[in-house]
Amino acid sequence: MYCGIAIFPSKEIQDAANSFRKRYDPHYNLIQPHLTIKEKEQWNEDQLAAAAAHLEQITKSIQPFEIHFNRFSSFYPVNNVIYLALSDTTEMIKLHNTICTDVCRESEKPYAYNPHLTIGQELGADELHDVLSSLKNRKVNLTSKVDRVHLLFQTDNEAWTVHQTFLLRG
Amino acid sequence: MYCGIAIFPSKEIQDAANSFRKRYDPHYNLIQPHLTIKEKEQWNEDQLAAAAAHLEQITKSIQPFEIHFNRFSSFYPVNNVIYLALSDTTEMIKLHNTICTDVCRESEKPYAYNPHLTIGQELGADELHDVLSSLKNRKVNLTSKVDRVHLLFQTDNEAWTVHQTFLLRG
Repeated sequence: MYCGIAIFPSKEIQDAANSFRKRYDPHYNLIQPHLTIKEKEQWNEDQLAAAAAHLEQITKSIQPFEIHFNRFSSFYPVNNVIYLALSDTTEMIKLHNTICTDVCRESEKPYAYNPHLTIGQELGADELHDVLSSLKNRKVNLTSKVDRVHLLFQTDNEAWTVHQTFLLRG
Repeated sequence: MYCGIAIFPSKEIQDAANSFRKRYDPHYNLIQPHLTIKEKEQWNEDQLAAAAAHLEQITKSIQPFEIHFNRFSSFYPVNNVIYLALSDTTEMIKLHNTICTDVCRESEKPYAYNPHLTIGQELGADELHDVLSSLKNRKVNLTSKVDRVHLLFQTDNEAWTVHQTFLLRG
């Protein structure tokens, strides 16, 4: 089954993100607003259990931190994605690099990890530019603590179920 | 915010349930297939934290167990709900009674706890009878281990986010 690792920000940020996702993100009904830590990968039950053991161990030494969203941005032209962007990505990249090791290491990827909260995707180029130009001047000032990560699996309808959460206990 | 406690069964059971929920359950997009342990209740951040502490403590002494679904059933005429029913509800009722204590105790409710996995709700009486009569003779034989419970909160769009999972470690 497909499994992945993600962070769900505070309810306040989820509500803000959902108000956009509802219109612009076809994944709106499949998962709540999140920041991906590890992209989905096909795992069997043993690999899922090994990932849970790895996360249980590694999160012991990770300290909780805060993230701050300060703007809307886009991956265009690489991807027609609009996202809430972080003012500083250092801590999230550190978290990703710590977690995605051992049984959770990522396979070769064409681009570097860039933490983000998607609010629109699979948009046509015209629609992307319309939406982005209307969002780019909006003031964004949203803060969320990151004190846990979630290990998830995907059901056949492509929706996600949380398998287990791991508190950052460093 | 609204918070609740639930169990998500195995992927196999979630997939089976979703094939029905897609057609008959308006909550299909709001949460994955689940068995409710504690109905939603309005809590503040402190109450959510207190519930997490309670669950962390109480799950230490609860042993994992198995549940077995053996039929479709309905709460009609009390509620126009169709659900996957358990062959034996003893362990789930025990789990509910252990968890719903202290800060997680339930307020007065008009009916006793009846563990179930909803696959249809808010159906008209005619539709309910049509669906139920087509499902009642289906063979059901689905087993899932119960080795964790999930504490969830609801966002403004009525979808649910898992706040924390607690392994049954007894």
